[in-house]
Amino acid sequence: MVEFLEEKRVFSGRQIRYQHDSKVLNCQMVYSLFMPNIGEDETVPLIWWLSGLTCNDQNFATKGQFQKYAQAHKVAIVIPDTSPRGDAIADDEAFDLGQGASFYLNATQAPWKDHFQMYDYITEELSELVKSQLPQFNGKEAIMGHSMGGYGALMIGLRQPNRFQAISAFAPITDLTNVPWGKKILSAYLGTDQKVWETVDPVKLVQQDSVPPILITQGTADEFYPEQLQETAFLDAAEKSHATVEYHKVEGYDHSYYTIATFIEEHIDFLSQHLS
Amino acid sequence: MVEFLEEKRVFSGRQIRYQHDSKVLNCQMVYSLFMPNIGEDETVPLIWWLSGLTCNDQNFATKGQFQKYAQAHKVAIVIPDTSPRGDAIADDEAFDLGQGASFYLNATQAPWKDHFQMYDYITEELSELVKSQLPQFNGKEAIMGHSMGGYGALMIGLRQPNRFQAISAFAPITDLTNVPWGKKILSAYLGTDQKVWETVDPVKLVQQDSVPPILITQGTADEFYPEQLQETAFLDAAEKSHATVEYHKVEGYDHSYYTIATFIEEHIDFLSQHLS
Repeated sequence: MVEFLEEKRVFSGRQIRYQHDSKVLNCQMVYSLFMPNIGEDETVPLIWWLSGLTCNDQNFATKGQFQKYAQAHKVAIVIPDTSPRGDAIADDEAFDLGQGASFYLNATQAPWKDHFQMYDYITEELSELVKSQLPQFNGKEAIMGHSMGGYGALMIGLRQPNRFQAISAFAPITDLTNVPWGKKILSAYLGTDQKVWETVDPVKLVQQDSVPPILITQGTADEFYPEQLQETAFLDAAEKSHATVEYHKVEGYDHSYYTIATFIEEHIDFLSQHLS
Repeated sequence: MVEFLEEKRVFSGRQIRYQHDSKVLNCQMVYSLFMPNIGEDETVPLIWWLSGLTCNDQNFATKGQFQKYAQAHKVAIVIPDTSPRGDAIADDEAFDLGQGASFYLNATQAPWKDHFQMYDYITEELSELVKSQLPQFNGKEAIMGHSMGGYGALMIGLRQPNRFQAISAFAPITDLTNVPWGKKILSAYLGTDQKVWETVDPVKLVQQDSVPPILITQGTADEFYPEQLQETAFLDAAEKSHATVEYHKVEGYDHSYYTIATFIEEHIDFLSQHLS
């Protein structure tokens, strides 16, 4: 049922690709897993990485430069694809809707609802699958991501605050209900009922008692900042609910993986500290 | 004449792409330059990175994970493309001949000789261009590369041993005149005269008095090892001429950029030590 695709040694750990038939998404899916080199009696926590628009499971694996630090902290990292994929699956010509652009939501609207059930896929089906492959899993999880995946990490982490020890994000879309990308995909995937939108809105979700610690890095030269990535509403809401949010603006860095590569050590350190 | 294409901040330095009209190659060429963040009065040495078959100037920039160490040692790194390119330029259907596969040679045979003059391009035209852009250049150079580019680094570094302070290579083709890739391209680019082949053969070139220090890393799980990457003839010749060659075999690593990423810190350290 799970097919091994390839394994690459990197920083003494293993970067592995698998393929499986997803029942939740009703299609074949590929995912990547970094497994650090550990001793026989050692265990590992699990960090989820959610990628941005147009990405698949390979972008972070090849360009994220995280393996050195994941090995140093002995954490496993799973990288799902960003949506269901295939000729038989709904899509849109735009890069910010459809395949490669699930926003990690469970769609309720046609034509998306048949396959776009990424929230359930990530938090249930793929979770169970990955944990079944990891007898060394120590029960602790954190979640991180970039751009659309930074939104996904916040949305999922804040909807399951007792499951995830910490959340981190690069250039996340936080004010989803007010920015162009968000308005477009919320209408398409969830319909126009604003009450439904609130259930997946980080600005609303952060207003609760038990918020995991959050680290966000945002480049000032990011081509999507501030239009798609405006942070004020989220930071204001977080402050009101006394959530622990570190928001780092980094001068001159853009939306690319070069920014992720530069600051990934800090993010892995942050998550690992809360996972230990 | 030189057109700026883009610049990305990474580890506080700048990863830059340029385009220019090459007179030597008689076509438009793209190259990448990493420039570390330095003080106003500081200078930098220059390291050349030569990529492998099918690559262009972007593979090492995005997947090589070198910028952290290039910034730490304050070295500039230039990444040329791997061949002339364009519809009007000779090519072959195979990935190991023609565009993307110059082997950094000056071709003497038709149809290649019109454009495939990569040795002159790298060592003269592009050198002059890059140095003209780098008033901070301190006059010291080293050269490194991967696979075909590992061969290129050895061939160029050994043909100009007084110019390059050190040479390093990942999975280099050293025994060019005896392995399938080498025999094929030498016949195509240089004809069948074995005396001519010797002028670009690392096994012959290493047999001289002034050999720069050399570091080589070779993965044992490399899919092209040992057939294309056999090292014995080169290491034997190096030993006879008392050349300083460190040859590291690394267990379980393959031909990919994951291996480069894992050991690039060691290579940049090695080259920097000889550049300072």
